[in-house]
Amino acid sequence: MDNTNEELDILRDKVRGVTTEIMRVVQQRIELARKIGEVKSRLGIDIKDEKVEHEIRMRVMLLAQEIGMSTEFALQLLNILLVESEHVQAQKSSQKVVEKQTHLGIFSKAKQLEATGKKIIHMEVGEPDYSPPTRVGAALAESFRMKLYHYTDTQGIAKLRDAIAAKEGGGICKDHVVVTPGGRFAVFSAITSLLRTGQELIVIEPAWPAYKECADFVGARTKILRTTLEDKWIPDTKQLEGMINSSTKMIVLNYPNNPTGKVLDHKTMENIVLIAKDHGLYLLSDEVYADYVFAEFSSIRKYDYAKSIVVGSFSKRYAMTGFRVGYGIANKDIVSKMARVQAVAITSVAEPMQQAALAALEVDPSENIKLMKKRLDFICRKLKKMSLRCVEPEGAMYAYPELPKGEDIPIVEKLLEKGVALAPGSGFGDSYKRFVRISACQPEKMLEKGLDVMASVIREQM
Amino acid sequence: MDNTNEELDILRDKVRGVTTEIMRVVQQRIELARKIGEVKSRLGIDIKDEKVEHEIRMRVMLLAQEIGMSTEFALQLLNILLVESEHVQAQKSSQKVVEKQTHLGIFSKAKQLEATGKKIIHMEVGEPDYSPPTRVGAALAESFRMKLYHYTDTQGIAKLRDAIAAKEGGGICKDHVVVTPGGRFAVFSAITSLLRTGQELIVIEPAWPAYKECADFVGARTKILRTTLEDKWIPDTKQLEGMINSSTKMIVLNYPNNPTGKVLDHKTMENIVLIAKDHGLYLLSDEVYADYVFAEFSSIRKYDYAKSIVVGSFSKRYAMTGFRVGYGIANKDIVSKMARVQAVAITSVAEPMQQAALAALEVDPSENIKLMKKRLDFICRKLKKMSLRCVEPEGAMYAYPELPKGEDIPIVEKLLEKGVALAPGSGFGDSYKRFVRISACQPEKMLEKGLDVMASVIREQM
Repeated sequence: MDNTNEELDILRDKVRGVTTEIMRVVQQRIELARKIGEVKSRLGIDIKDEKVEHEIRMRVMLLAQEIGMSTEFALQLLNILLVESEHVQAQKSSQKVVEKQTHLGIFSKAKQLEATGKKIIHMEVGEPDYSPPTRVGAALAESFRMKLYHYTDTQGIAKLRDAIAAKEGGGICKDHVVVTPGGRFAVFSAITSLLRTGQELIVIEPAWPAYKECADFVGARTKILRTTLEDKWIPDTKQLEGMINSSTKMIVLNYPNNPTGKVLDHKTMENIVLIAKDHGLYLLSDEVYADYVFAEFSSIRKYDYAKSIVVGSFSKRYAMTGFRVGYGIANKDIVSKMARVQAVAITSVAEPMQQAALAALEVDPSENIKLMKKRLDFICRKLKKMSLRCVEPEGAMYAYPELPKGEDIPIVEKLLEKGVALAPGSGFGDSYKRFVRISACQPEKMLEKGLDVMASVIREQM
Repeated sequence: MDNTNEELDILRDKVRGVTTEIMRVVQQRIELARKIGEVKSRLGIDIKDEKVEHEIRMRVMLLAQEIGMSTEFALQLLNILLVESEHVQAQKSSQKVVEKQTHLGIFSKAKQLEATGKKIIHMEVGEPDYSPPTRVGAALAESFRMKLYHYTDTQGIAKLRDAIAAKEGGGICKDHVVVTPGGRFAVFSAITSLLRTGQELIVIEPAWPAYKECADFVGARTKILRTTLEDKWIPDTKQLEGMINSSTKMIVLNYPNNPTGKVLDHKTMENIVLIAKDHGLYLLSDEVYADYVFAEFSSIRKYDYAKSIVVGSFSKRYAMTGFRVGYGIANKDIVSKMARVQAVAITSVAEPMQQAALAALEVDPSENIKLMKKRLDFICRKLKKMSLRCVEPEGAMYAYPELPKGEDIPIVEKLLEKGVALAPGSGFGDSYKRFVRISACQPEKMLEKGLDVMASVIREQM
């Protein structure tokens, strides 16, 4: 016994020595990173260098295999080294991190202005102005009478999951559904349960900022695939495949797209699914605008890919944003991981809200869809008259035109002063400062007023 | 220009070499950990060794200071090394991780049994059987009529935060309040926003499992301070202070306590606040049972400590569990960090639920409190007759008696077969296998029935 304790002591002593050694070498690496930061700053070179990063990642993987280290652990370790290097370089460099101005920031400013008595036309948020189905109100009152206000199954009440499974079709059942507080939490629970620190996901920009926010929350890295107005917002699937490395775990899709209204054609979707399959990646498909579709659209579910997760919501379909009910659809294994996050963070979704959603599902939302299409057509005609470039939306609730001159933030701020709230394009990606997002969640008359103000502000800029 | 690029190339080459070196030394450390694991397994020694870990943490901190490395980064790095070492050691050892059986597991089993037609007396969950105030029902219907079902401020609607601030008193205003989907999300957002991977929080057991679950979610480590029935569940503050190291960031309190019903005396509370102050720690005080108090109790807010966070809820006070409305109270900086988590995960709490909570706040819950006290007294009398040891609850909704013989899980399972659901004591901490938690959320008649079944099962065991 004593003998073996001695053995332990010797081993522990070695651990101490090796730990000191690790710290010293790591510090050497940090010093080098600092120097590189200085050189880059002098040359005005961007701190991030994907190519160099990729190369070092490949090296570390090969080395891990060679020395018998778990690749997953090696990549995790490398990642915290890379993050610290970036951190140190940013300190040395003149590049500053500026808080991003998003549609929510403008919404909040607009609300503050309203509180001072100013009238604002809200064309910045994706919150329909029409009402939820009347039976939703009845269901609310009923839920209280029937004492339906208790903890529910973490995944959601069985009846609601049954109804969602039936609506979605394709042979799924309630076990493939998790009811979440809004589509946002389905995104949050999918990303935080399926990705870990140092792993990567690919987001196609322009994009709703939530995907990156959720990735940041668990220390996962967001790689950006940019699309352009010139290419009609269609992602280059070759480029997509080129971005994949051993740390990549997920591709995020969002079609019909917020903010562009783009819907992908079958061929492109098929390509993306094949790429995901080839590399064993999760496909998170945020389809909360799936009802608002004016072109041919197929859900990722049609492609029958086991590692796909569909996000749906009652917010847009039934104008039920403030009820905070959405859902995720995936295989049982993924659903149980997402439900686990839900159990830790919120226990379950408020039961009266689930009852309200259940009642809503019986209602056909097609009138809402027609109305939205009509408004988007109206917006597009107005934009054409203003000679702004814009890809006509094939779905969702937004137009995303290019500004003829200047950047989004000053123009959005000037518009807000004049009582019109728009979302700055750069809220959906750093490279979209020349764009704004116009939400069609207002009556046509209001949209007309707002767009007229926008036209006059843009004329002034010319 | 060429010259400086050459400079970059040389530096990058050095980075490659140093990175390889880091990986090699880290692998040496892992090999040593593996050997230690083998020795420990042979000796039957626990893998975790707090003392050794503490010692190495201190060394690394000193070393970091010496070589100019950020201590925070050094500890983060050390932590992933420690986690990987544990991981490797666990593989070598025979120690297996068993999924813990908690009150929620029993609740779920009980629900399944009910679905097959079996009658169950629910004494396992903390969900009051009485109804929310009637005006809550009216507020629900009203919220629909008044179109109060939109996105709200992430922190919660101003009126509700005003009302919570007024109820809580002590000079706070709405800026110190964040409305969350249940008290659980206030715990989640506090822990995940204030702690990072490798940092530590101290939880006093027996404890609600949520604190550790939230810490696990961000890779923070939970250190356990155990209390005993013999010491009347009073924590040893000397021992508490001894557990603090440079990685410790938070102490979690939960009084009135779930599961013991303990309320801390003023002196002990004051001691804990002083310790937190001395070490600059956050104090997360989960006070969701603050209304159910039958002894002298003061909220952590009385101690005016800037780094404290109070968690409150409408669930227990008004029997509104399924509405999922709770809140956090803290200084503006902490509140904005918690609200940030909320913005990322859920946008805002469902507005009709916030309106319902606002309506409830006008109601005095003292009848509920009297009822709960009466039931707990009844349970305690019954337990005394059964000769079970139990510290009389001074608050909350539970009794936590010691079993005279045997372990909790087999007894709880036998009881469930006989139609009585109890929470196993070990769900609140590994060292409490000799305990069960009895929830007083049932009418006295049902409690009597359930306790009689419990008495007979225990007699059989003797």
